[in-house]
Amino acid sequence: MQRFPENPLIRPEDVPPSRDGMQVVGTFNAGAFRLGGRVGLLVRVAERPVQEDRDTVVVPAFDTAHYPPGVERVRLRRDDPAWDFSDRRVVLARPGGPAPHHYLTSISHLRLAWSDDGRRFSLDGLETAIWPDHPRGRFGLEDPRVTEIDGLYHITCSAVGDGGICVVLLTTTDFRVLARHGAILPPENKDVCLFPARQGGDYVILHRPSGAWCKPGIWIAHSPDLVHWGAHRFLAGPRPGRWDGDRIGAGPPPIRTPRGWLVIYHGSGPQGYCLGAILLDIEDPGRVLARSDQPLAAPRADYERDGFFSDVIFCNGLAETGDGELWLYYGAADRVTAGGRLSVRDVLDTLA
Amino acid sequence: MQRFPENPLIRPEDVPPSRDGMQVVGTFNAGAFRLGGRVGLLVRVAERPVQEDRDTVVVPAFDTAHYPPGVERVRLRRDDPAWDFSDRRVVLARPGGPAPHHYLTSISHLRLAWSDDGRRFSLDGLETAIWPDHPRGRFGLEDPRVTEIDGLYHITCSAVGDGGICVVLLTTTDFRVLARHGAILPPENKDVCLFPARQGGDYVILHRPSGAWCKPGIWIAHSPDLVHWGAHRFLAGPRPGRWDGDRIGAGPPPIRTPRGWLVIYHGSGPQGYCLGAILLDIEDPGRVLARSDQPLAAPRADYERDGFFSDVIFCNGLAETGDGELWLYYGAADRVTAGGRLSVRDVLDTLA
Repeated sequence: MQRFPENPLIRPEDVPPSRDGMQVVGTFNAGAFRLGGRVGLLVRVAERPVQEDRDTVVVPAFDTAHYPPGVERVRLRRDDPAWDFSDRRVVLARPGGPAPHHYLTSISHLRLAWSDDGRRFSLDGLETAIWPDHPRGRFGLEDPRVTEIDGLYHITCSAVGDGGICVVLLTTTDFRVLARHGAILPPENKDVCLFPARQGGDYVILHRPSGAWCKPGIWIAHSPDLVHWGAHRFLAGPRPGRWDGDRIGAGPPPIRTPRGWLVIYHGSGPQGYCLGAILLDIEDPGRVLARSDQPLAAPRADYERDGFFSDVIFCNGLAETGDGELWLYYGAADRVTAGGRLSVRDVLDTLA
Repeated sequence: MQRFPENPLIRPEDVPPSRDGMQVVGTFNAGAFRLGGRVGLLVRVAERPVQEDRDTVVVPAFDTAHYPPGVERVRLRRDDPAWDFSDRRVVLARPGGPAPHHYLTSISHLRLAWSDDGRRFSLDGLETAIWPDHPRGRFGLEDPRVTEIDGLYHITCSAVGDGGICVVLLTTTDFRVLARHGAILPPENKDVCLFPARQGGDYVILHRPSGAWCKPGIWIAHSPDLVHWGAHRFLAGPRPGRWDGDRIGAGPPPIRTPRGWLVIYHGSGPQGYCLGAILLDIEDPGRVLARSDQPLAAPRADYERDGFFSDVIFCNGLAETGDGELWLYYGAADRVTAGGRLSVRDVLDTLA
């Protein structure tokens, strides 16, 4: 991947907080799409409460009784043994203790950004922001994927709430009026992308369940109507001891190529979160034809190595240029949005 | 609950192993149904390899290349730090280590048993046994629920495999010829029961997802066709500090009563696994009307307190008597099948 010289493209310091008392800590993991000749991004904007003193951790939660939601601030004492503060992304309820559930240290909503050249983006105001509207999204909406089918844009994103992390679906034609279709998969699930074409009449998604017996990996499912999903099949898992040995998940919606469906995915391992590719059969996308031996991109630039969470390249958006090139938009170090170019032919050549 | 004096009804020592080199360690967690005037049970039969010496743990896995499947025996050294042998039900792959996945110490298949009086059961031979036929069930099929709709029996059970624990659906009219419908929900999920009637044209299930952010609790989902599921909603979770504070899951298929759908569920907490009840709205079973304050049954009998895993009453099968009484069939201490009577009116009286 050739990184854009303009990187990073969107930074937290460019975005004012949505309300008093909050600060923007991340503008990352953007979905991407084309509309009216422009490239649109749906950026995950993570905010956390302004902290008060060293003895207290203030954690946020959306109050979804209204829309747009309010923000609750909950004060936790740093010396309270019920909580584990060791991960800066999350405050864990220690097992067996009195803490009722985990908290995230920041909560995310989705914001639109637009570009004529795919590199210089301007962010919309709050009027087109997408917020959770249900307690299942009490801790935010994350990591959207956008798939256009016949002019209808399908947004799949993770909703984090008390009940778990599940995947919700929204549809729109203009990113102003949204239809919300609820949770399409039960928790825990993330990293859902919808194929841009039906297969045998069915919609098809890639998804990423996880659990005690289930290492985070890529599964496929089918639906007649986008709401009810079934025929779940395992496609690919982490490869212990390799660059993608810990966890993997699908990235942006698959791209149709002459050799198969090209899926950009993220894999975490000794180098952090890297990008790779999987090639799926055109007729039966449940069949894996090839998979990257080496990462297509690994964290190397400063903004990929240092940020909110170190050593992360996480791509959930891309735009096809029409001449065999992909513009990848990716979250770098869980903090900024960056971009890069990739030739489809070059990627396919690595999938021999 | 009034325990049957005949308890336990089915014990491992009554069942010969399915093949040489295996021993039956559990005959428990049976689904129940009525067919041709008899009560049928679909019993989970757990077998483990005959162990060899103190330095080795031999763990089993089904080889699903053939049907009925073969059994692989894998020898693990008890001093190998890659494995955690501290739970007698499971051998855990220690995180970050070289062990590729967890193993169960026993693997389960499903066996039919029949009774004219609901108390004395005779077990079928292996010819009607139900085995996994796919690697997703490599470590067995567990905890079936059976729901009859218009003469078609729907079996939902957990399939444990390398990819996780997911829920599979089978249908039959006679428990001899089975149609298999694959995984209806992605991992991790268990404790799925199908309502005995459609709601507004849809099939409805209760299910129990779990994960890092998702405490094991009861959710509801809908389907037009039994294969594709959606509209996932959270119904009820564990109540920290109470008898069902750790985990809960639905039991047998819900019973229609004048006051609502009656759901028998299991909850684990300080007393072990107990039974309780939840009442759901008849028109909108996604609405919880009431829930047991105290357990309907807690482990007390010897066979409930001591067995393979102590202090467990786990009910996934029942039969209605037609005169307002329920016969509950339950797994006791993860070892035997037992039974008891419960008056529907008495249960409803506890759900004020």
